[in-house]
Amino acid sequence: MSIRSYCLAEIAGIIDCKVDSRWQDRRITGLAPLETANEKQLSFISHRKYKKYLATTQAAAIISPIEISGDVNENTAVLIHPDPYLAYAKLSHLFAYKIPSTAGIHSSSVVDKSAKIAKTASIGAHVVIEEGAVVGENVIVGPACIIGAHSTIGNNSYLHARVTLYHHTQVGERAILHSGVVLGADGFGFAPEKGQWVKIEQLGSVLIGDDVEIGANTTVDRGALGDTIIHNGVKLDNQIQIGHNVKIGMGTAIAGCTAVAGSTTIGRHCRIAGLVGIAGHLEITDAVVILGMSGVSKSILEPGIYASGIPLEPREAWARNVIQFKHLNELAKRVNQLEKKDGLHE
Amino acid sequence: MSIRSYCLAEIAGIIDCKVDSRWQDRRITGLAPLETANEKQLSFISHRKYKKYLATTQAAAIISPIEISGDVNENTAVLIHPDPYLAYAKLSHLFAYKIPSTAGIHSSSVVDKSAKIAKTASIGAHVVIEEGAVVGENVIVGPACIIGAHSTIGNNSYLHARVTLYHHTQVGERAILHSGVVLGADGFGFAPEKGQWVKIEQLGSVLIGDDVEIGANTTVDRGALGDTIIHNGVKLDNQIQIGHNVKIGMGTAIAGCTAVAGSTTIGRHCRIAGLVGIAGHLEITDAVVILGMSGVSKSILEPGIYASGIPLEPREAWARNVIQFKHLNELAKRVNQLEKKDGLHE
Amino acid sequence: MSIRSYCLAEIAGIIDCKVDSRWQDRRITGLAPLETANEKQLSFISHRKYKKYLATTQAAAIISPIEISGDVNENTAVLIHPDPYLAYAKLSHLFAYKIPSTAGIHSSSVVDKSAKIAKTASIGAHVVIEEGAVVGENVIVGPACIIGAHSTIGNNSYLHARVTLYHHTQVGERAILHSGVVLGADGFGFAPEKGQWVKIEQLGSVLIGDDVEIGANTTVDRGALGDTIIHNGVKLDNQIQIGHNVKIGMGTAIAGCTAVAGSTTIGRHCRIAGLVGIAGHLEITDAVVILGMSGVSKSILEPGIYASGIPLEPREAWARNVIQFKHLNELAKRVNQLEKKDGLHE
Repeated sequence: MSIRSYCLAEIAGIIDCKVDSRWQDRRITGLAPLETANEKQLSFISHRKYKKYLATTQAAAIISPIEISGDVNENTAVLIHPDPYLAYAKLSHLFAYKIPSTAGIHSSSVVDKSAKIAKTASIGAHVVIEEGAVVGENVIVGPACIIGAHSTIGNNSYLHARVTLYHHTQVGERAILHSGVVLGADGFGFAPEKGQWVKIEQLGSVLIGDDVEIGANTTVDRGALGDTIIHNGVKLDNQIQIGHNVKIGMGTAIAGCTAVAGSTTIGRHCRIAGLVGIAGHLEITDAVVILGMSGVSKSILEPGIYASGIPLEPREAWARNVIQFKHLNELAKRVNQLEKKDGLHE
Repeated sequence: MSIRSYCLAEIAGIIDCKVDSRWQDRRITGLAPLETANEKQLSFISHRKYKKYLATTQAAAIISPIEISGDVNENTAVLIHPDPYLAYAKLSHLFAYKIPSTAGIHSSSVVDKSAKIAKTASIGAHVVIEEGAVVGENVIVGPACIIGAHSTIGNNSYLHARVTLYHHTQVGERAILHSGVVLGADGFGFAPEKGQWVKIEQLGSVLIGDDVEIGANTTVDRGALGDTIIHNGVKLDNQIQIGHNVKIGMGTAIAGCTAVAGSTTIGRHCRIAGLVGIAGHLEITDAVVILGMSGVSKSILEPGIYASGIPLEPREAWARNVIQFKHLNELAKRVNQLEKKDGLHE
Repeated sequence: MSIRSYCLAEIAGIIDCKVDSRWQDRRITGLAPLETANEKQLSFISHRKYKKYLATTQAAAIISPIEISGDVNENTAVLIHPDPYLAYAKLSHLFAYKIPSTAGIHSSSVVDKSAKIAKTASIGAHVVIEEGAVVGENVIVGPACIIGAHSTIGNNSYLHARVTLYHHTQVGERAILHSGVVLGADGFGFAPEKGQWVKIEQLGSVLIGDDVEIGANTTVDRGALGDTIIHNGVKLDNQIQIGHNVKIGMGTAIAGCTAVAGSTTIGRHCRIAGLVGIAGHLEITDAVVILGMSGVSKSILEPGIYASGIPLEPREAWARNVIQFKHLNELAKRVNQLEKKDGLHE
């Protein structure tokens, strides 16, 4: 998708490493894994399990944490970098497709006259911006986004197509919101009265910090009283549900389809895998790692790695074990009984 | 977000309780928790665990189920109400932000000439309303909604931005549909034929009752034969998936990310937590409560509280227990064997 | 919703079976289950559990795998077909509501002049088609869809309202994409650097084969390096999340709310139920069936049926068993100990 190219000297400069003078002018047109890279592409090796591809790779150059000149074709350039995966991350920006955008408001968009749109912002087709909204410098608002009344979007943020911000939502700088994201819908709050539900109006809002990325079709509800807060540097994958008044600390990353119920606080630098369910009103401290499909029903006060999934088995074996699960308490009692008889405990 | 204010006498009238004459004229500008309320805000105490905040709260007034004058600052007004949470729910409506809307059809919308739109309805920007659709009195259709052919929306319903109704979908009165909701997409139905899937056209529709609220990005599929039916007063949170021909009884509430497979019937006044999976073709009776992340693979014929989640543990402990889970049936047999040897059973 | 009708002779012709001459001219206006079918509707019996409805059904005709004339009203036509469910699937197409569409581009749409739109394609209201996109013959693009730059849509595909294709997404022929689908959003990739996340630009794309159907609000991320590939005939239900660089083989069907993490390969003709979580970098072979709510954390190299769910129980019984689960490893050791004492093993 890219026709840009960079010489290895430029590339080495960006990731702050050296390249042998023989190879400085070699032009690179893209990034690729060792197995599929062609003679104009740059690759990297970040794990020993890929070592087997070194002998046969066609890559023009390889980023490696250690010297590998002996393992590759003598024509392959080698760039030594202590963290090839990070180097790859940084270089990926060179080759990203830039969706064309021009400053200004597309003629098909509907922008309330009280909204403040920076001159450098690009407002796509069929966008709706309601009263009092503020859009910062260099912001790109993709087609068909809805920016609710009194919402604000910080400088250099990027909203892909079809994002909804409800009223009074605040998005920080350099945020990336993917298509289908909904920020600020009502939290799920009702009080029972004689068999009916009385709606609790959600009077708070949603605050999104700087450098936050939110994946496609993820939803973050507005607070009931007070706000739902996603702090700086948080990364949310697709189809995540964040309930009202949740707080997520700086730098925490959450994978797809995880749900966090209302009023839970998640600390900084946590890593939470996909399809995890976190109950409401909990506290999860900093630096907690939670494995996929775990259910969290109590607060986690110690950093560490947590899990609650169940291993997959062929159906017959699973069925036999699962039946026993329903008798587990009884089984424990029976073992107790045996131990008593044997005098193993009192 | 609000500059409205109400005097305590008005507020007491709304929730049908008394307020001492000293405080009747005190003006209230909002609601807040005890810890953060300022001297113009109203708070409430609904659980004893918040009692610790009474001594120091700055709230102008507190709704309490019992007399607490001795526990609070003598300047704090106390309103006695048997259900402070319900009182709070009712009062929240006073302070809700009303998104400005005016009756009429925005000039950017595309409305088929055969559609019937009530004069009092408000149709936002970039809406599409297809042939034969009917929109009732005082309905608000937010920007970028798509109202499919022959769909109907009952009086006083509110569609937030970017809601899709497929053709022939029926929505009752006072419904609230949040952004990203999709009603009436095809149910998941295919018949296998020689290794290929033959699509089963979904010939039914979706019927949504009165007073139903549906959260952001939730999807309700149309019926295969016959309809998918969400009865009056049902509340669905965000990112819920309701399969074809499901029926959900009056007043049932379901939390985020729960999935209900096709042809299952859920009774009235059930409460189903988040990330629950309910298999297809089941019957769940009235007044069933299901805890978070449960898997329901059989019908539930008795009211009660049900669960199937697994507790979270530190990874090492989890790994040890999970390995044993795969040997649970074998373990049960071994205990059997021991018991036989001990003569504990025949 | 339909006023079309077909005579039984036509219907029998479509599904390649015979109908007695008495009934050939009987007109059928729709399909319905045995219990609710009226005297102008066709029904079918695909499982013996519905046999009880035969005596009282009002259906005009019934498709059955065996002769049932003796079990039904003598006026009921019987069509013998070896696979009534497949016959029903085929006949459902006769009665499907056809959303009206006309070739051409709606005047409210914004189509880049470099995009190539087939003359027979129908582009709905408020659509945005970006530079270099290609839309094939007879394609229907529903209202408010966003077709990103350089994306392609094969002949006879159908995009319902509010679908987003990011740039360079490729969709095959006869695909059906439901409302809210997002194809080609960035995969979830970040490299850590001093407590911050460096975004990995997602340089690959999404390739969708022919005859693929994708349900409402499902998301398929673009590849990091290389592409995410959904092969021909794959059927994805609603709210599924497919991570970057996933490959899904021909004819595989996946039910709602399942999540597949990055770089996993799923084989052909698999059937995966709802709310299943599949970890990243796994290989799942052909013809694997995975039951609902299973967690897959290892590759599956043998065809078969797999599961890992836990049975639902009343809360009290569940709580007792779940506590024991946390002691399962200890329990196994205690049984070991007893066996040693008993001399059952060394």
